[in-house]
Amino acid sequence: MSEPAGKVSLTGIKPSGEVHLGNLVGAIRPALRLAEQYDSMYFIADYHALTSIRDPQLLRHYSRSVAASWLAAGLDPKRTTFYVQSDVPEIFELNWVLSCVTGKGLMNRAHAYKAARDRNIEAGEDPDVGVNMGLYNYPILMAADILIMETDVVPVGKDQVQHVEYAADIAGSFNHLYGDTYSFKIPQAIIPDTGAGDVLPGLDGRKMSKSYDNTIPLFLPENKLKKLVRRIPTDSTPVEAPKDPDSSAVFQILEQFAPESAADVVADTRKRLEEGGMGWGELKNVLFEVLNAELAPMRERYNAYMEPGSELDEVLARGAERARGRASRVLSAVRKAVGIA
Amino acid sequence: MSEPAGKVSLTGIKPSGEVHLGNLVGAIRPALRLAEQYDSMYFIADYHALTSIRDPQLLRHYSRSVAASWLAAGLDPKRTTFYVQSDVPEIFELNWVLSCVTGKGLMNRAHAYKAARDRNIEAGEDPDVGVNMGLYNYPILMAADILIMETDVVPVGKDQVQHVEYAADIAGSFNHLYGDTYSFKIPQAIIPDTGAGDVLPGLDGRKMSKSYDNTIPLFLPENKLKKLVRRIPTDSTPVEAPKDPDSSAVFQILEQFAPESAADVVADTRKRLEEGGMGWGELKNVLFEVLNAELAPMRERYNAYMEPGSELDEVLARGAERARGRASRVLSAVRKAVGIA
Repeated sequence: MSEPAGKVSLTGIKPSGEVHLGNLVGAIRPALRLAEQYDSMYFIADYHALTSIRDPQLLRHYSRSVAASWLAAGLDPKRTTFYVQSDVPEIFELNWVLSCVTGKGLMNRAHAYKAARDRNIEAGEDPDVGVNMGLYNYPILMAADILIMETDVVPVGKDQVQHVEYAADIAGSFNHLYGDTYSFKIPQAIIPDTGAGDVLPGLDGRKMSKSYDNTIPLFLPENKLKKLVRRIPTDSTPVEAPKDPDSSAVFQILEQFAPESAADVVADTRKRLEEGGMGWGELKNVLFEVLNAELAPMRERYNAYMEPGSELDEVLARGAERARGRASRVLSAVRKAVGIA
Repeated sequence: MSEPAGKVSLTGIKPSGEVHLGNLVGAIRPALRLAEQYDSMYFIADYHALTSIRDPQLLRHYSRSVAASWLAAGLDPKRTTFYVQSDVPEIFELNWVLSCVTGKGLMNRAHAYKAARDRNIEAGEDPDVGVNMGLYNYPILMAADILIMETDVVPVGKDQVQHVEYAADIAGSFNHLYGDTYSFKIPQAIIPDTGAGDVLPGLDGRKMSKSYDNTIPLFLPENKLKKLVRRIPTDSTPVEAPKDPDSSAVFQILEQFAPESAADVVADTRKRLEEGGMGWGELKNVLFEVLNAELAPMRERYNAYMEPGSELDEVLARGAERARGRASRVLSAVRKAVGIA
């Protein structure tokens, strides 16, 4: 791939846990669908994860595992640029430049910081207790991630729109001061259509989320996947009784996860539940079979990528090279504009 | 020079104005004397100056001019490592790592930020009005400057001791979390003996300082230097009357500036003032002659360094290479320790 010619879309992926079914349905698939409309760039935001992960082994593992997961799920590194944030040191130098044009007031209003602050105040603590400067500064680093790639659009969840607005704000301040020499492209947030996928239920019926500890990890061995599916709660409606598919977590996972090839299975299952005669046990078997049929080949690819010395390293090295090409061009223009070099 | 073997001393020089006589007497000379006891490193902190200088031409000029001034004043780039901060990108990546282990509470107590905050509150403004994140974060960048060079000592003025304490604090937090794998060296502040040089009087009799606009720039052409010396205020004591040398700004500049070679001129002048018969005009001539004798060869060296394509570029490129050697070694150990790469 040469330099992207169309509009550039950038997606940051924070490696803060094992990838699970909710991520696949709510984030990875919508992102990959969107990739087809843009010159897409994806990066593993390992240095963002450092604001909260203090265990070096874990951070290393998540970074590798999340990268392998996206590739296994279908990210095509030939059509997109896929790199690790820490492989692009230009980002951190730009981060400093952006600090110098960012008002502290803006940072005081950032959601993540305000939430931490409010929790402290509520607990009767000093407002900044336990807040590290990585957390406080990370909207600036995120702006650097975005601006250094001359990004047009950033696909985000609703709760992440502020980050893109901040990047646009900071770019505006820079352009106001130095726009005669260099202007950042102003990025826009887009909220991709996730279908209902952003509320995929978890093992306890609540939204599947790492913070609820109710996830189905994507690359479990088959037998463990089967066990987890069995654990999804159901009520005691007898086998023969008609059931409401839309109030069953098992059915919802089936429906939201099911690939197009399994559309008939979903329709058939819905019908059988509504008519009565299908028990929860049988429904769980159907879900397991559909999941496993789709996940088995992914799991194989994932395991191959996770082998030491696998193709993963090569893929990320190529991505880093492409990303650094863009980044160093922008940074060098920025340096000239501000009077460094 | 190979890697420093003894204790490492690091001095940051912020390029925020033309170097003046007060800098030479109060900062450059003490620093160069100190350099002889350590493996000394000096750097032009151009990215620190970016927190306040918005004019790219000016920032570029000051960076070059301050580097040329220190070399002209006797900094020996063969015996010391002399580099520009922005030539060592490793500093900015470390800056982010340090952010992640720095409590926000620490930053709230930093002198420069607190002073800006207090001024705002006093003026009835929002406390953070006009405060940019470069100003707020710069103690962390300073810690990165210091720690990445495995610095033992940092010579500073009394008002700068906090920066070194912060670097030590931040290093302590990092070592606490990651010390099993890598530990930063804990830096110490030392306050060099400036003689009385830190209160060299300026053109209006107050301390010579850029902020009072009362300085004698170091590398004025001879005729302009003469004119400035004539502008130093004196009273109307007649020529014949005895005068108190210690209450004369002209004499104080002479005494503090006079290199050892002019010690007899100083002693003789003191005597003649106290006895009466020496007028202010004659005193100013003496000062000019002593200044010019010392500054003329420096001025010549300075002008040569300031020529485009001069040896200065080579000197700084060599310094950057040496500095990056140290910095990349430390950064790579830090990356391993925190779980990046």
